[in-house]
Amino acid sequence: MTTPVDLREVGLRDGLQLEAPVPLATKLEILDAVSRTGVRRVEVTSFVSPTAVPALADAEQVVAELGRWPELRFSALVAGYGGARRAVAAGLPHLEYVISASDGHSLANARRTSDEAVAATADIARLAHDAGGECEAIIAVAWDCPFDGRTPVARTVEVARRAVELGADRICLGDTIGTTVPGRVVELVEAVRAACPGVEVGVHLHDTRGSGIACVLAAVQIGVTQIDAAVGGLGGCPFAPGASGNIATEEVVYLLEESGYSTGLDLGRVLEAAAVVERAVGHALPSGLYRAGGPSRPVPRPV
Amino acid sequence: MTTPVDLREVGLRDGLQLEAPVPLATKLEILDAVSRTGVRRVEVTSFVSPTAVPALADAEQVVAELGRWPELRFSALVAGYGGARRAVAAGLPHLEYVISASDGHSLANARRTSDEAVAATADIARLAHDAGGECEAIIAVAWDCPFDGRTPVARTVEVARRAVELGADRICLGDTIGTTVPGRVVELVEAVRAACPGVEVGVHLHDTRGSGIACVLAAVQIGVTQIDAAVGGLGGCPFAPGASGNIATEEVVYLLEESGYSTGLDLGRVLEAAAVVERAVGHALPSGLYRAGGPSRPVPRPV
Repeated sequence: MTTPVDLREVGLRDGLQLEAPVPLATKLEILDAVSRTGVRRVEVTSFVSPTAVPALADAEQVVAELGRWPELRFSALVAGYGGARRAVAAGLPHLEYVISASDGHSLANARRTSDEAVAATADIARLAHDAGGECEAIIAVAWDCPFDGRTPVARTVEVARRAVELGADRICLGDTIGTTVPGRVVELVEAVRAACPGVEVGVHLHDTRGSGIACVLAAVQIGVTQIDAAVGGLGGCPFAPGASGNIATEEVVYLLEESGYSTGLDLGRVLEAAAVVERAVGHALPSGLYRAGGPSRPVPRPV
Repeated sequence: MTTPVDLREVGLRDGLQLEAPVPLATKLEILDAVSRTGVRRVEVTSFVSPTAVPALADAEQVVAELGRWPELRFSALVAGYGGARRAVAAGLPHLEYVISASDGHSLANARRTSDEAVAATADIARLAHDAGGECEAIIAVAWDCPFDGRTPVARTVEVARRAVELGADRICLGDTIGTTVPGRVVELVEAVRAACPGVEVGVHLHDTRGSGIACVLAAVQIGVTQIDAAVGGLGGCPFAPGASGNIATEEVVYLLEESGYSTGLDLGRVLEAAAVVERAVGHALPSGLYRAGGPSRPVPRPV
């Protein structure tokens, strides 16, 4: 049994977005290391306000260099129509449009209600499709919202259903604050699938509270093949220096390959990419596997 | 559904054993914080060579103070008959006797073969029982050995079967180097149960490569109720400073309580105990949940 799982590397976007800005040349060096891991999909940047996210203010410049890696499928995150237009104009029509499932998070992040964000899917999907691209709807705070508390399953399902109705090609469920657990992942994925038959449902999880890798396994065990992860687990929480955020690509690769799934990624190459990222950001990365030095190492302790 | 899971706090032993020695008064302060978490079982020290493990050279002094917490069930790890005698003489007859399933690990750690270690169970169990205590057999390198590679399932099963035959009351399977994954946990626990009917089988896992919490969940889902963990995830690997080792108690509590299981522990009290431990050891702890500041906190990021 080797079920293929199609990881998406999100370190360049979700990993770097909260870091001090990294020079373009360094980003390209990271991309080069990522390209050698064997990963096929890369979330390469976001087209959002450069004031809000200065680390990704060079989105157009990054996209201009992507011809170097013809084997990779790149996408960019957008938070609204303006960003979508920038991405398409830059030559990257494969969009991930973020819709918050709660009003609290939607108003805080995008100054509009969740329903207004959903409604904008139509124009953004049309823009992507007209440019030959795709539009994935990423549903933020799909499980829990830092402002409104638990997001009702029915609300996330409804956001997904309407986004697909309005033109989204795929759904990705985001555990924005890293609070969900495996049972809730299964419950929500199955509910969204039931409401959106034939539509691929992926997950963007965080490992903030230790349950992230267990959630990935739970998702993969019910057939989810679209998994987001970042080399080294880059992507900390601004309120908690050192707190891990993104699922570490190498930890997912290790878990899945040891569990009978196939990722197509080379674990050694992923660890090399993590070393490149660590040098780029200038601080230790949270990934346990990376810090342990790899898949195996002697430990002289009793148990 | 609230299936009870009976955690054992191992921070005082497996957590502190590789740290610079901590004063007795500080250990008692940690114990006091641990006692307030609601945990019922505590692995409080080990009776091993003070030269090999100077951090636990005060085992007798620690045990002399345990009358302060009559509500807790204490146990101590021993690696042979000499340690068992010391523990019993000190007044703690509840022993965890470590047996390495591989010759490589057994020879490196205890200067005897695995079979010789198994054979010693008889005398150690008798000593414990004669003193009114119990003898749990902890099988080290139950899944993988840093010297001999993968431990055959049949070998670990045979060690467990013979240890029980020779008087061990319980079995605990140790993932000494933190390499196992959920599927292998299920496979081994079920094989050991089949070979030792009616004997309780617990797990001592490490979170070195990110899969530890997923392994805990897999174990609990097949009815394992005896789970080892350390507040703050204390217990690093000497070869990789900062690498996480022990499963963090607070991450297990969070995962299990959110998943419909009952641990009896108060998550806030566990985080308070982690803060006490962090002050005691003087460096940051690896637990993601502890670093994130608790079960929930707003994060102003898109996804």
